[in-house]
Amino acid sequence: MSDAHETAGTPREHHTSQDKSLAVQAAMLDSADELAALRDLFALHDDSVYLDGNSLGALPRHVPERVQDVITRQWGELRIRSWTEGGWWTAPERIGDRIAPLVGAGPGQIVVGDSTSVNVFKAVVGAVRLLDPAEPARDEILVDATTFPTDGYIARSAARMTGLPIVPVDPEKLLGALGPRTAVVLVNHVDFRTGRLHDLPGITAAVHEAGALAVWDLCHSAGALPVGLDAQGVDLAVGCTYKYLNGGPGSPAFLYVAERHQARFDSPLPGWNAHTDPFAMSPDFTAADGAVRGRVGTPDILSMLALEAALDVWEGVSLAAVREKSLALTDFFLECVEAYAPPGRVRSLTPAAHAERGSQIALRCAEAPAVMAALIARGIVGDLRRPDVLRFGFTPLYTRFADAERAARALGEVLTEVPAED
Amino acid sequence: MSDAHETAGTPREHHTSQDKSLAVQAAMLDSADELAALRDLFALHDDSVYLDGNSLGALPRHVPERVQDVITRQWGELRIRSWTEGGWWTAPERIGDRIAPLVGAGPGQIVVGDSTSVNVFKAVVGAVRLLDPAEPARDEILVDATTFPTDGYIARSAARMTGLPIVPVDPEKLLGALGPRTAVVLVNHVDFRTGRLHDLPGITAAVHEAGALAVWDLCHSAGALPVGLDAQGVDLAVGCTYKYLNGGPGSPAFLYVAERHQARFDSPLPGWNAHTDPFAMSPDFTAADGAVRGRVGTPDILSMLALEAALDVWEGVSLAAVREKSLALTDFFLECVEAYAPPGRVRSLTPAAHAERGSQIALRCAEAPAVMAALIARGIVGDLRRPDVLRFGFTPLYTRFADAERAARALGEVLTEVPAED
Repeated sequence: MSDAHETAGTPREHHTSQDKSLAVQAAMLDSADELAALRDLFALHDDSVYLDGNSLGALPRHVPERVQDVITRQWGELRIRSWTEGGWWTAPERIGDRIAPLVGAGPGQIVVGDSTSVNVFKAVVGAVRLLDPAEPARDEILVDATTFPTDGYIARSAARMTGLPIVPVDPEKLLGALGPRTAVVLVNHVDFRTGRLHDLPGITAAVHEAGALAVWDLCHSAGALPVGLDAQGVDLAVGCTYKYLNGGPGSPAFLYVAERHQARFDSPLPGWNAHTDPFAMSPDFTAADGAVRGRVGTPDILSMLALEAALDVWEGVSLAAVREKSLALTDFFLECVEAYAPPGRVRSLTPAAHAERGSQIALRCAEAPAVMAALIARGIVGDLRRPDVLRFGFTPLYTRFADAERAARALGEVLTEVPAED
Repeated sequence: MSDAHETAGTPREHHTSQDKSLAVQAAMLDSADELAALRDLFALHDDSVYLDGNSLGALPRHVPERVQDVITRQWGELRIRSWTEGGWWTAPERIGDRIAPLVGAGPGQIVVGDSTSVNVFKAVVGAVRLLDPAEPARDEILVDATTFPTDGYIARSAARMTGLPIVPVDPEKLLGALGPRTAVVLVNHVDFRTGRLHDLPGITAAVHEAGALAVWDLCHSAGALPVGLDAQGVDLAVGCTYKYLNGGPGSPAFLYVAERHQARFDSPLPGWNAHTDPFAMSPDFTAADGAVRGRVGTPDILSMLALEAALDVWEGVSLAAVREKSLALTDFFLECVEAYAPPGRVRSLTPAAHAERGSQIALRCAEAPAVMAALIARGIVGDLRRPDVLRFGFTPLYTRFADAERAARALGEVLTEVPAED
């Protein structure tokens, strides 16, 4: 399976011994896993296998108590004083600095707040406004044609409002599409559907060589693998905090504006939180310096401080170890799927090459809706991407090799029960 | 004080008997207050007087338990299933429908999500795009010159991105400024600084007569007084939920798009949540029908469901009773201030006429920073609007007449201690 997308399948009669050997192998891998102890930090039970952390990360066990303090003491007792004394006001940039090392950014370049969609709008319009006005011929926004759709929708709105056209481009063909008309390029680091990891260093360098700016969407890579924003010279980036960063349902997204661009970053959403002196309540807008310029309105404190608490699980965790385990988990899952799944029923859409793989496995399966429903009924929680993709996310902080084996085994069983479509 | 802005002041030697009579009067008013029992629904203690609910509403007592369930059970156990089974996905429009009756809107016209600033952007750009393209001469956006600053900043960005100029106009002079060039008018229902209530019915009618669209900011009126969005024919509106709606720090704002405009409402932030079939993950955007079209990205569930819980306190509450108590409270506070404050030290910026008054009292005071600090040290929590405004918010659901009397008495004491500036 390591070099082929098609699962070869194996005769059913071999399953019993294979089950045992793969289960034994899983146990060995788990016992050698240096991140294994982190699982205890999360509210997870052995009655199910949660492989949907790429949609909603699991709850870190200590978060409820922290949020309770935010609500009962900070809101309930201190009330308005918490904005200053409780650190509410500075939460967006403080939490941004907590996320920064996880995506390879130095301090002062990330703010947390708003949804990913809103941040894509800030980033794309902001990037267009960073362009040299002496180069009006540079007028195209290239957008990942396989993007999670909201990026495309929002980029199109940003393009419409800045007067530039959108050019959808498959990331595989992006390098060939770059040219003297390229203004801004918006790409996903990891494809939400296939789990394909795009070449952030190579694409960013090529974009710069073409004289354009690179905006990266890190929704499916932040917390799953090293990103290296500063080292690779990324211009702007957005990301999600409720997937591999476990911030909670709909927790606020983040915006990265590289330090060298901050002084000229001109947000299309210059709310009062981006003002250099918000409480002056001046009718004139004077943008704050630094990452704060990316803020808009009053931050949603409950969601934001739940995220801040959730980030504690990263204390002392090496992203290199996370990446190593992620690849080992997805390799092992593919191996198990190859062993357990009836031949020809599923086909991996996720690249076999490590350099091209994020932290999920997407399997194409004609009967995907029925199969995923049956898996969930058995406690194996992945998700469906219509019409025919089974998606399994592997969060190295809490997913065990035993979970991968159990999920693949259940998939094999379900596939024998759900008849193949003609 | 009822007809004059200047507090007349009274000789100090009368204070003792006045204190008693006003304290007695407060007790009588409280015992006759039909909303008095609602205070028990909130986490408030008698060691302080909280008059900052127009900045951050107090915590309803039952909210912590509800949020705990959202975190530990819905997120911690059900995890991704809560998006469908737990009603997370439909929360923005469901909670919008809970807010609707509080602002005089029928169902299906309000969605909750994003900050007020982001919603101002949607509303102003959306309003411009609703204009008849056959009337290109209608090209001015009139903006309340005394607005809470973020509305002005964002309106200017919306104007820049739609190519229309902004014209700041004092709401008092708005009717005279309307004309054939007026495209959109953005006004605050209640002025954040002075507490002045603007004439929503009259201004809306005049805006329509001029052929333009009216966008109202309800931040300081939603939950404080009847608004009548549908009855007055308001076109679009935005509002805040963490002031008089007690949704919690930074809880999401709301957007109202009148039903008659929804089919043509063209959001500048068309995120995937506004798509007619978001999980089709289509590269092409097709806007959802109805209020959902005002959504953008994934909603911040913790903040949103805390707000939903907080709205329970409105069960069976009459907004007419809320308004009546609000006016009685502010009248009484002004009467107490007149009785207790040394002559000439404070002057009310809030109109005496009920028809022009929101639910706060703003007192101009040369020594405002020192005075507010001293008040807060005594447990009387209002807030300062730099440089010289003392702001006291009166939330009829939980503020007592005794609180108003106690706050005014403390203000009188503080003013005798803080020397008047020359």
